[in-house]
Amino acid sequence: MSKKIRVGIIGSQFISHIHTLSLKRCAQAEVFAVASPTPGHARTFAAKHEIQHHFTDYKELLAAPEVDMVIVGAPNDVHCSITLDAAAAGKHIVVEKPLCLNLADANRMIEACRKAKVKLMYAEELCFAPKYVRLKQLLDSGALGSPTLLKQSEKHNGPHAPHFWDVNRSGGGVTMDMGCHAIEFFRWLLGRPTVKSVYAQLGTHVHNAKTEGDDNALILVEFANGVIGLAEESWTKLGGMDDRAEVHGSKGVAYADLLHGNAIETYSAEGYDYAVEKAGSTKGWTFTIFEEEWNYGFPQEMAHFVDCVQNDKPPLVSGEDGRAVLEVIFAAYESARTGRKVQLPFLTNAKKPHDLWKLKQ
Amino acid sequence: MSKKIRVGIIGSQFISHIHTLSLKRCAQAEVFAVASPTPGHARTFAAKHEIQHHFTDYKELLAAPEVDMVIVGAPNDVHCSITLDAAAAGKHIVVEKPLCLNLADANRMIEACRKAKVKLMYAEELCFAPKYVRLKQLLDSGALGSPTLLKQSEKHNGPHAPHFWDVNRSGGGVTMDMGCHAIEFFRWLLGRPTVKSVYAQLGTHVHNAKTEGDDNALILVEFANGVIGLAEESWTKLGGMDDRAEVHGSKGVAYADLLHGNAIETYSAEGYDYAVEKAGSTKGWTFTIFEEEWNYGFPQEMAHFVDCVQNDKPPLVSGEDGRAVLEVIFAAYESARTGRKVQLPFLTNAKKPHDLWKLKQ
Amino acid sequence: MSKKIRVGIIGSQFISHIHTLSLKRCAQAEVFAVASPTPGHARTFAAKHEIQHHFTDYKELLAAPEVDMVIVGAPNDVHCSITLDAAAAGKHIVVEKPLCLNLADANRMIEACRKAKVKLMYAEELCFAPKYVRLKQLLDSGALGSPTLLKQSEKHNGPHAPHFWDVNRSGGGVTMDMGCHAIEFFRWLLGRPTVKSVYAQLGTHVHNAKTEGDDNALILVEFANGVIGLAEESWTKLGGMDDRAEVHGSKGVAYADLLHGNAIETYSAEGYDYAVEKAGSTKGWTFTIFEEEWNYGFPQEMAHFVDCVQNDKPPLVSGEDGRAVLEVIFAAYESARTGRKVQLPFLTNAKKPHDLWKLKQ
Amino acid sequence: MSKKIRVGIIGSQFISHIHTLSLKRCAQAEVFAVASPTPGHARTFAAKHEIQHHFTDYKELLAAPEVDMVIVGAPNDVHCSITLDAAAAGKHIVVEKPLCLNLADANRMIEACRKAKVKLMYAEELCFAPKYVRLKQLLDSGALGSPTLLKQSEKHNGPHAPHFWDVNRSGGGVTMDMGCHAIEFFRWLLGRPTVKSVYAQLGTHVHNAKTEGDDNALILVEFANGVIGLAEESWTKLGGMDDRAEVHGSKGVAYADLLHGNAIETYSAEGYDYAVEKAGSTKGWTFTIFEEEWNYGFPQEMAHFVDCVQNDKPPLVSGEDGRAVLEVIFAAYESARTGRKVQLPFLTNAKKPHDLWKLKQ
Repeated sequence: MSKKIRVGIIGSQFISHIHTLSLKRCAQAEVFAVASPTPGHARTFAAKHEIQHHFTDYKELLAAPEVDMVIVGAPNDVHCSITLDAAAAGKHIVVEKPLCLNLADANRMIEACRKAKVKLMYAEELCFAPKYVRLKQLLDSGALGSPTLLKQSEKHNGPHAPHFWDVNRSGGGVTMDMGCHAIEFFRWLLGRPTVKSVYAQLGTHVHNAKTEGDDNALILVEFANGVIGLAEESWTKLGGMDDRAEVHGSKGVAYADLLHGNAIETYSAEGYDYAVEKAGSTKGWTFTIFEEEWNYGFPQEMAHFVDCVQNDKPPLVSGEDGRAVLEVIFAAYESARTGRKVQLPFLTNAKKPHDLWKLKQ
Repeated sequence: MSKKIRVGIIGSQFISHIHTLSLKRCAQAEVFAVASPTPGHARTFAAKHEIQHHFTDYKELLAAPEVDMVIVGAPNDVHCSITLDAAAAGKHIVVEKPLCLNLADANRMIEACRKAKVKLMYAEELCFAPKYVRLKQLLDSGALGSPTLLKQSEKHNGPHAPHFWDVNRSGGGVTMDMGCHAIEFFRWLLGRPTVKSVYAQLGTHVHNAKTEGDDNALILVEFANGVIGLAEESWTKLGGMDDRAEVHGSKGVAYADLLHGNAIETYSAEGYDYAVEKAGSTKGWTFTIFEEEWNYGFPQEMAHFVDCVQNDKPPLVSGEDGRAVLEVIFAAYESARTGRKVQLPFLTNAKKPHDLWKLKQ
Repeated sequence: MSKKIRVGIIGSQFISHIHTLSLKRCAQAEVFAVASPTPGHARTFAAKHEIQHHFTDYKELLAAPEVDMVIVGAPNDVHCSITLDAAAAGKHIVVEKPLCLNLADANRMIEACRKAKVKLMYAEELCFAPKYVRLKQLLDSGALGSPTLLKQSEKHNGPHAPHFWDVNRSGGGVTMDMGCHAIEFFRWLLGRPTVKSVYAQLGTHVHNAKTEGDDNALILVEFANGVIGLAEESWTKLGGMDDRAEVHGSKGVAYADLLHGNAIETYSAEGYDYAVEKAGSTKGWTFTIFEEEWNYGFPQEMAHFVDCVQNDKPPLVSGEDGRAVLEVIFAAYESARTGRKVQLPFLTNAKKPHDLWKLKQ
Repeated sequence: MSKKIRVGIIGSQFISHIHTLSLKRCAQAEVFAVASPTPGHARTFAAKHEIQHHFTDYKELLAAPEVDMVIVGAPNDVHCSITLDAAAAGKHIVVEKPLCLNLADANRMIEACRKAKVKLMYAEELCFAPKYVRLKQLLDSGALGSPTLLKQSEKHNGPHAPHFWDVNRSGGGVTMDMGCHAIEFFRWLLGRPTVKSVYAQLGTHVHNAKTEGDDNALILVEFANGVIGLAEESWTKLGGMDDRAEVHGSKGVAYADLLHGNAIETYSAEGYDYAVEKAGSTKGWTFTIFEEEWNYGFPQEMAHFVDCVQNDKPPLVSGEDGRAVLEVIFAAYESARTGRKVQLPFLTNAKKPHDLWKLKQ
């Protein structure tokens, strides 16, 4: 049996907990260290998850020779710099979505990893979510005929951490935060054909006081093969996270509901501990999810990358995929401003997607 | 008790059967006559529904002084001429959707009825579908807060009669045939605010051999109050008719499924008589609907117009509403060609919506 | 057109409102009078429903020659005496379920109506509920093969009026109040074969402080043809009324959910007017029903009996059916005491079903 | 890291494949050998799953000193003898449900394992099914108040292997085969209180030509704490496996559907590879399950026992639990014959459960 892969966690918030819990299920991995700049965060995180080492400066983590790979769960605006440093330190890298703030940074990250001969995975967990994996099998098997329309949506009532509301750190609103899931989901489901054009309708309907980013989005992705992807995203949907997909084809149709569909239908007069991410109250009727991380594919995703590192395999979702998603996001914001379908490839020097939309106001 | 309202049915196909069955449930109405140009159709229809009179020329029907009102269920391209004749004959008129082929015709119809002092109802049955009526009550009551996004979709595997495939008779494909439902549904649900812009993605994905009309459509209707309506229509969806709506608001969300949701979940090894409109086979799993017409609101719609005629009330859905829907449809086809959001009001001399899209090819 | 049937409502509580609303939808009926002994109740009821006449003594109502038929919605313990009086007055009669408290009374009621040549309908509305009517059609058509198991359940958190908790007035707990629905539903669905035996498991799990009646019941009805009916009833189920049925057969299976299934799935942060009978709070997730009475079949049931009276037809559900249900209920209580399957016919002189169970304690 | 646990598989049919696939997911286990008496079966099985050793005589497998534990997936009638041999050989043992054919054998098995100081697990996978584990957490947390009624059902159209139809080998029909799941599920969910009484309604409705065993069963388990468990089992249900549970309590209710609920709702005109266990055709509408074994809890169950062996922990489900289930099954068959509620403890010398029912005929 090969030696265990030692992992460094960079970040200590919501997604880093999920990454860590997922890695703990992977017999081939060992979570070795965690780094977070906010004083105390890394220590608390390490204590909670029984991780041996913790740092406030992620560079110290990168300096540890034991560390084979890192998972970057820090805010979007530091994805690029951390990745460049990690590549320079010779660590394999998983970058949480979205890849980074702009296309130039994306290019730099991909190039740095290539040169350093380290693996770079773009962390799109939906490509590992077991229900969606089965959905792709259905499509690939011909059960649904030729696809005509794909749909995917994620909806909840707003992000966990304050930096998401600040477009300078996040790069954009719900399109950047959750639209990225749908875009890569469509690409993966179809075997990654070329995107031909993008149209987007974005709005800030509810959270205007908190952000200038979009809190509701409809994004139409037109593929070269004629298939349309309809992404529907929201930061204003109450009642708990919603994550659904549909595949419409010439010979059939399939509906996959990741959370609500799988849940235990529960009525509790008193309420209880937890129903699902962002459920709000658990009194009355709720849809109780089970094994939430597993249903999203996080443990499977982490086990996949550990296997890639251990056995020198290419990751299922690459830095190039992350860059392609980002290009579609830029086109979406451009479209939202102009009211036009934007053709791809779409090259722009904009520092972040939101800038293209902001020109409007 | 006032005297019964005598009704003339113009048309003898799918929708005319539904209109007749619906009127038969209405104690205040009597179906007096039916007219259809195809030899034998009117006679067969009259026999089946026990209607006293039948004509091959609708003008004979209009000449009958007993007839108080007519229901126009003929193909789209003759809606206008029949309506003009019926108005001239002093009959109250229900016109099946869509109102007619172009805006000039719509103006003529509205004007003719106004001058003749006859009532004109645009037959959008979704405004009478009991589940959708309850949905509107929920929204109006504030249960969902301020609306942000409305969705409505109708999907099946293609129209009943051949003239729908011929854009010269139908005026357009699925956007014209079924998109019209969603557009009026949105307007009605919101209390008929101004439409600000329209964007549409149309395609002919499956039925290219049969039609040059669109068989799949996504239509984004932006209202002046910022609410977005997303209409999703298909003529390529197998497994039976699908009719759903959602209302997303700042304080809640509601999901209404008219057919699939209400159905009896059935497994039959042998199959049986009928599951739902266009279900295909009834072997294996199916979703058996009950009281299909009632669930769509047809009897309620007919009873409403009979009441309007009997008691001199304005119809809930007017000729002006039908015209407004048509304007949105023209804008949708224009948008599909140009890849741009089209602002309203949108004036055009095009003879039919499909013409604006056809310019593309 | 025949003259309208004039109806007298006896009772002014929950079910009498439903009966009245249902009759108002029936063009052939006119609600002529209401009677209720509690001072003021009949007057308020009459005002609310715009009924011309109201009485505190139902005998005055029976004395009105205009009244063609009465609907008895009074407490169970007066069903018999009112029916005897109404028959003596020559009125056609609908008796709300259960028919009465004991078999001797049932015999008297049936005999009295027979002699007086008035029609007697036992008001089992589930035989008119449109989804269940469709379910019966499926079974009758052979879609499901030979039936093996039928299931029906009604569950809510307890009755509307205090007299239900008093077994001396109600005759029994949830088995008497709601089990009666399932028993007649099974008989009707199967074409009323002989009941061979009954087994029941009854308990008072939650409402011991309020009643000595059963608040949860499982009743197994074995038919002569080998089919098993499983009735599941509860007065302790929170979250709104539940009304479901299943038919399992050798060639298929069908699941019909009358309320939850049909509902609009709603999330409301603020709550709203009404979700469904006994829903409790409407904040958070709820299942919003629409046209509740119609879905239960009440208007259809009333229209049916009005038609029976007007056109001299036999009611779909007779006094004999009500008596047969009562016999099964007696057997169920006997079984609950003895822990044995009770064979039918089951003759007993018990004054009410609960007495057979009470012997236990 | 402790050394891997080496596993011997005894059996080569349906359930042994599942056990093997589940063990392959467990990093701490190694499937070392398989034994099956039918010539060629073990070899084919070993080839398919890449297992090093295969035997036609399970005693040779038991003789291998490398084997730490065995999984007995052979027919019911040999569970006892294999277990006794395995215990004598010093192997830890998992016995597939039901534990064995009679109580005397159960006693022998438990005693043999006790004396040999080997662990004995009764393989009730539902106690590991993630949705049901979450359901138990809900109940334990007080979310539903005090339980009143538990329900669990498993339904499909009949067993995989011919020996199930032969009551001499299986011990009984669907009550033995699938009722055992519900019985242990109830015990586990409630923390294993004493069973007070059992009532059962059994029948052979469809498969009379194939078996004298019961093919439909309703079993009422009354616990000492007053909670009722309703088990509903069928070997005649078409359309794919059904596995559901409900918990009704004084403060709430929860509905958990293991398969149908979780599935992708699929329509395929052409059909596809696999929807769910025993689905029949995959044309038309189907409910496509994903990660079926995981959803049932098989990998979790196997990992649990491997952990028990490796770290000397007691199994969650013991031989005593398997015996308790068997006692309830005997009482159920006795009840089905007598039409009476049978009190527990229920001692019997019957050689197999079916014998008690057979006395009837």
